[in-house]
Amino acid sequence: MIDPRQAKIGVVGLGRMGANMARRLADQGFTLGALHDVRAETAQELSRELKCPAAATLAEVTAKADIIFTVVTDDAAMRGIFTPENLLCQARGKVFINFATVSPDVHRELETAFAAAGAQAMEACMASSITQAREGTLFLILAGDQALVDAMEPLLAAISSARRYVGPTGRAAQVKALVNMVMNINTAGLAEGLGLGNALGLDLHVLREIFAQTGANSRVLETDGADMQNREHECYFSAAHAAKDSGIAVALAHEAGVQTPLAEATLQQYQRMIDKGLGELDKSGIAELTFKDRAL
Amino acid sequence: MIDPRQAKIGVVGLGRMGANMARRLADQGFTLGALHDVRAETAQELSRELKCPAAATLAEVTAKADIIFTVVTDDAAMRGIFTPENLLCQARGKVFINFATVSPDVHRELETAFAAAGAQAMEACMASSITQAREGTLFLILAGDQALVDAMEPLLAAISSARRYVGPTGRAAQVKALVNMVMNINTAGLAEGLGLGNALGLDLHVLREIFAQTGANSRVLETDGADMQNREHECYFSAAHAAKDSGIAVALAHEAGVQTPLAEATLQQYQRMIDKGLGELDKSGIAELTFKDRAL
Repeated sequence: MIDPRQAKIGVVGLGRMGANMARRLADQGFTLGALHDVRAETAQELSRELKCPAAATLAEVTAKADIIFTVVTDDAAMRGIFTPENLLCQARGKVFINFATVSPDVHRELETAFAAAGAQAMEACMASSITQAREGTLFLILAGDQALVDAMEPLLAAISSARRYVGPTGRAAQVKALVNMVMNINTAGLAEGLGLGNALGLDLHVLREIFAQTGANSRVLETDGADMQNREHECYFSAAHAAKDSGIAVALAHEAGVQTPLAEATLQQYQRMIDKGLGELDKSGIAELTFKDRAL
Repeated sequence: MIDPRQAKIGVVGLGRMGANMARRLADQGFTLGALHDVRAETAQELSRELKCPAAATLAEVTAKADIIFTVVTDDAAMRGIFTPENLLCQARGKVFINFATVSPDVHRELETAFAAAGAQAMEACMASSITQAREGTLFLILAGDQALVDAMEPLLAAISSARRYVGPTGRAAQVKALVNMVMNINTAGLAEGLGLGNALGLDLHVLREIFAQTGANSRVLETDGADMQNREHECYFSAAHAAKDSGIAVALAHEAGVQTPLAEATLQQYQRMIDKGLGELDKSGIAELTFKDRAL
């Protein structure tokens, strides 16, 4: 098994999460062997910043790195990067750690491809955001072959402050879908509470303080409550991402025959945001739908 | 203005909240002048326990007490107790502190009746449960005439650990409706997350631990998560109460012209519980609707 301390690490997908994970790995003394993004310029900039190689193609990432982080956006992106011409080109012995939130099916589907290429892969779903990626304090939900996960521990410990192993491949994506489903419901519900409070003419500072001390308290109240009130929707986790993740959860519920009316109502709200051109606002932007005086 | 330390206190409505508030007042050295419940036996039992008078009628409560706590269940009960034959009989100079969660309109409606009777009234909505009532650690949302609220401070401080004044009569009921609306949404959403996790065969202990460390965290995860998993629905806050409070909030939203699809979906879920004869389970019993293997 590859020793992460001796290995060259590649990072594919240099959005704010992937870029910050690369920065953290560099800080922690790991060797970055290849940085790649669909926008070549993004990879070149980060390569200059971190003084490590960029890779023009995905096959080049696999050639230059032993352990490859993939931090891409969705199912289609995951399917696109793991082809024999791309990351799976001459991938024997390589390890892929997939951080994207995608459908559980995609992980299981790709297992055959990994096996055919002689590569190993595991899931490390991130339940935290950009700041935590930079500081190495991510919360990771891990799944895949237990021996592989154990071998990657020094690397995972360098980027996260807490990790939970939840089972074989596909399990982390399921758990992540549930985390985001519940988070999105709480967010949409909070937006309704603050929107209605605003319409009633209540002081929203006081209302948020009362929510925080009662059964209405939640993590999203802490992270998004003030932003909803103040219309500060700079994007940490976009409405479009929220719609994607709630969509994954609702699809799982349909397959499993479980009724999830709140998850469906939440999905519809995030879809409304996308339809109104607000998909790239932060998830807190859902308050734009529930505050009466906000012109859409 | 009446000094609460010198006054006789009456308590109307001796459910578990009202009874525990009476016990706490006795502990704290206040003088209980009259205990009343629609079930006379309940008042007599507590009167023996606390060695203080019971009152057979509501008019007798007003005759025997200076400051009267009302802890009744709903709008109809509030309207029923505040008539000239009942609590408003010879009520000049008396103070009513209303703890029930009722529609904001009821408080405003009753203001005329209080004025006609020469009595004063304020709202003290409770955003906590039975244990906190017993221990004097309630969270109170206060509304009404500021001078009256200030005068009642020694009494309110004896039963609560935190208080927030939110404005004139009717405001506390609005805030309480919003607190419970958001709490109920978070509860219904959590039940969906755990129900789907169960259907997928995930370990729900681990899932709850992960929820607790992520954006899915909430107060109801702490208070209701394990109960949902273990089907422990002993009643602290009933599904029927949840339906009532979400109903108040949804009605406020309709009046105000605010769209609240999650609050409406939540109200429907609690209505389903009532329709299926589960209204007297705790609000955590909503998980009985979302766990596939639970026979209804």
